[in-house]
Amino acid sequence: MRKILVIGSGKSSSYLIKYLLEKSTTENLLIIVGDISFTHAKNLIGNHENAQAILLDVFDKHSRQDAIKNADIVVSMLPARYHIEVAKDCISFNKNMVTASYISPEMQMLDKAAKDKGLIFMNEIGVDPGIDHMSAMQVIDKIREKGGEMILFESFTGGLVAPESDNNLWNYKFTWNPRNVVLAGQGGAGKFLQENTYKYIPYNRLFRRTEFLEVAGYGKFEAYANRDSLKYQSVYGLDKIKTLYRGTIRRVGFSRAWNVFVQLGMTDDSYTIEDSENMSYRDFVNAFLPYSPTDSVELKFRHALKIDQDDVIWDKFLELDLFSKTKMVDLKKATPAQILQKILMDSWILDPEDKDMIVMYHKFGYQLNGKAHQIDATMVTIGEDQTYTAMAKTVGLPVAIATLAILNEKITTPGVQMPINKEVYEPILKELEENGICFKETEVPYLGYNPLHV
Amino acid sequence: MRKILVIGSGKSSSYLIKYLLEKSTTENLLIIVGDISFTHAKNLIGNHENAQAILLDVFDKHSRQDAIKNADIVVSMLPARYHIEVAKDCISFNKNMVTASYISPEMQMLDKAAKDKGLIFMNEIGVDPGIDHMSAMQVIDKIREKGGEMILFESFTGGLVAPESDNNLWNYKFTWNPRNVVLAGQGGAGKFLQENTYKYIPYNRLFRRTEFLEVAGYGKFEAYANRDSLKYQSVYGLDKIKTLYRGTIRRVGFSRAWNVFVQLGMTDDSYTIEDSENMSYRDFVNAFLPYSPTDSVELKFRHALKIDQDDVIWDKFLELDLFSKTKMVDLKKATPAQILQKILMDSWILDPEDKDMIVMYHKFGYQLNGKAHQIDATMVTIGEDQTYTAMAKTVGLPVAIATLAILNEKITTPGVQMPINKEVYEPILKELEENGICFKETEVPYLGYNPLHV
Repeated sequence: MRKILVIGSGKSSSYLIKYLLEKSTTENLLIIVGDISFTHAKNLIGNHENAQAILLDVFDKHSRQDAIKNADIVVSMLPARYHIEVAKDCISFNKNMVTASYISPEMQMLDKAAKDKGLIFMNEIGVDPGIDHMSAMQVIDKIREKGGEMILFESFTGGLVAPESDNNLWNYKFTWNPRNVVLAGQGGAGKFLQENTYKYIPYNRLFRRTEFLEVAGYGKFEAYANRDSLKYQSVYGLDKIKTLYRGTIRRVGFSRAWNVFVQLGMTDDSYTIEDSENMSYRDFVNAFLPYSPTDSVELKFRHALKIDQDDVIWDKFLELDLFSKTKMVDLKKATPAQILQKILMDSWILDPEDKDMIVMYHKFGYQLNGKAHQIDATMVTIGEDQTYTAMAKTVGLPVAIATLAILNEKITTPGVQMPINKEVYEPILKELEENGICFKETEVPYLGYNPLHV
Repeated sequence: MRKILVIGSGKSSSYLIKYLLEKSTTENLLIIVGDISFTHAKNLIGNHENAQAILLDVFDKHSRQDAIKNADIVVSMLPARYHIEVAKDCISFNKNMVTASYISPEMQMLDKAAKDKGLIFMNEIGVDPGIDHMSAMQVIDKIREKGGEMILFESFTGGLVAPESDNNLWNYKFTWNPRNVVLAGQGGAGKFLQENTYKYIPYNRLFRRTEFLEVAGYGKFEAYANRDSLKYQSVYGLDKIKTLYRGTIRRVGFSRAWNVFVQLGMTDDSYTIEDSENMSYRDFVNAFLPYSPTDSVELKFRHALKIDQDDVIWDKFLELDLFSKTKMVDLKKATPAQILQKILMDSWILDPEDKDMIVMYHKFGYQLNGKAHQIDATMVTIGEDQTYTAMAKTVGLPVAIATLAILNEKITTPGVQMPINKEVYEPILKELEENGICFKETEVPYLGYNPLHV
């Protein structure tokens, strides 16, 4: 039997393991799931005869190396910063490796060693990064094959709550790491290209410069700019493109309300609040507003943010119980961001029956025979339940499919890779489609930002 | 003759050296001015018989140590980060030392060594820090002596242009390091106390939460909060104070206009702008605004910042020529902050005849015999010309007076010090007053933020 070692049995491993177990008999596979919690690993595989759970602490060199030595291929589903130890062992013991994470500089440094040994280190093959790369490159390559020249590429992804579970005023629940949501957009200006002009958006304006998107059957969404939209410009071969923009999708109205937290300073993670432990939610809000012996926190909040008395945004804050005198922060030496996260987790947690949703939207503008064209491609995936979530499916399935393809020598190019070549994306996208993850392409009039060359 | 070594003959050394030279005959002093530019040092002393200019590179250990060994006391007027090398030599060669800079953690670490050797390292004895400490502590001590209990302390300082040279719409010119002005307020939320409540202001709201001040004879000013108003809370013995606020003074209207740069992201120093070298001022502004094939940069700017067509703020930006198509940035790989600084330096540079001004404003609230009182103390100093500036006078004079007082053993407490004790501030403030740097104290009704205990 061919042994696949999956390290980490967190949220995103459910679908991955399910897929591999389904293939295990026909493909002659033994799936070994290693986790720091044996019970956790065991729960995911049940009593499947082709699976084995092991206790694996990635910081324990011996258990890690023993497990890696014993495998034919290694999948690391650990948090991104832990991949490197696994990767180094994979070099030592000549194992191929797959991760869903961004290629770190340390990982990139292993490229030569991997190539020298003919090893494949496939990364960025989850949903974002992952499905975004593959689906974008498929269309871009198709446009190029027919002689088109890319002039616009915009790409948006969002992890949201499914319409049937969307029952709060923010149209949002935490379907992934809440901390990342609170800190989103921090750490540098947003940077992108519009009609050959570089544009920069500081954090304090990021959530007020959104774009709208419409997905047939799912209604209207909005998106705010990612930190660096130019990251994949050369990787995708788009060096001469005029417009390049990557964004994060939310339901309409989310960003304008979120901006209130940004403006007040509630998303700041760089300092701790005095006596945060003994603060009510109301005290927390008040810390960002001027002192007044008479005016209410509510009125000071409305005044500071210029929120009219009839603005529906107000109900969003009431829904969070932001002005509660009785709900306590109860966190020692907490940063504003940590406190805000706690407040939001009261309201934005998925109910047991709730389902999540992944939405992806690409726009491809191109010039062909002197005319401008545009293709829009959209993908929506809804989760089944809270184990088999849309996030777990869209992250785990491409990882699983790629793992098997490497094992079966259908993917053969060695080195530290990401899935931007036809050899990789074509069979994987085909199989994703068979599993319900499909893109709907439509030709639309080229919009751009200056379609008439004014 | 007693030898005083002054290292650094920059902007703030003019008054310092002038004062010492005036005292040199009666006090039997030789003033040795060391600078990396011999000419610069020489220019400041002219042909005075009790002065000597030497070439001194602070990074050249031998020349530095030779000069320090040869002196009776050392004054370092170097940029703050260079003091530590001088300080270590002063420990080695048993010399007292004076600086106008904040006590760095490295400097603080020399406290024990200085005390062991009976050496005085006097720091923070310029204007801010310096005169602010001394003038505040004098009033605070006076209030305490009569049995009062401090309940409010607010302190504001600003380096501005003198009224007679105030001829632009911003009522501001660079009278000190322009870079510090552009970056002011960055690197952490403003933090202060109002009526026993901790308050936090993020950078993006700092310039919209100003307070107004009125100085008799000089009109109205405004002030924005310093980064950490609580820095001197324990040092001043104000641990039980209800309101503690420190701010930076500008002329009214400056902050609201400056906030426009902050909102657009033009003060960001954390990344470089693409092709900054070949940008016009207009291109620079446009990089922070959405693309439009038709709308002007001016209208996009007005719209983004919600500037009405009749808002006088607009003329401030026109005065800077911010929308010029012909004025070029002409800086390679520049950050937004560097580019903004360059644009401002076109307009905010002192003319040869211009004079600068230092304004300081303290408010002391206290409880005495069950009643609340308040003393306001203000100080305004106007420069003479561009060598003998108000900044040079208010920085250099207290340094000079302290240096002579240490030499004459009138200040005797050893260790790494700042001027908060009566032994130090009383004689220095007296002599500053004789030199025209005086505070005007007035009793006013206690204002606070909740004077009626609502």
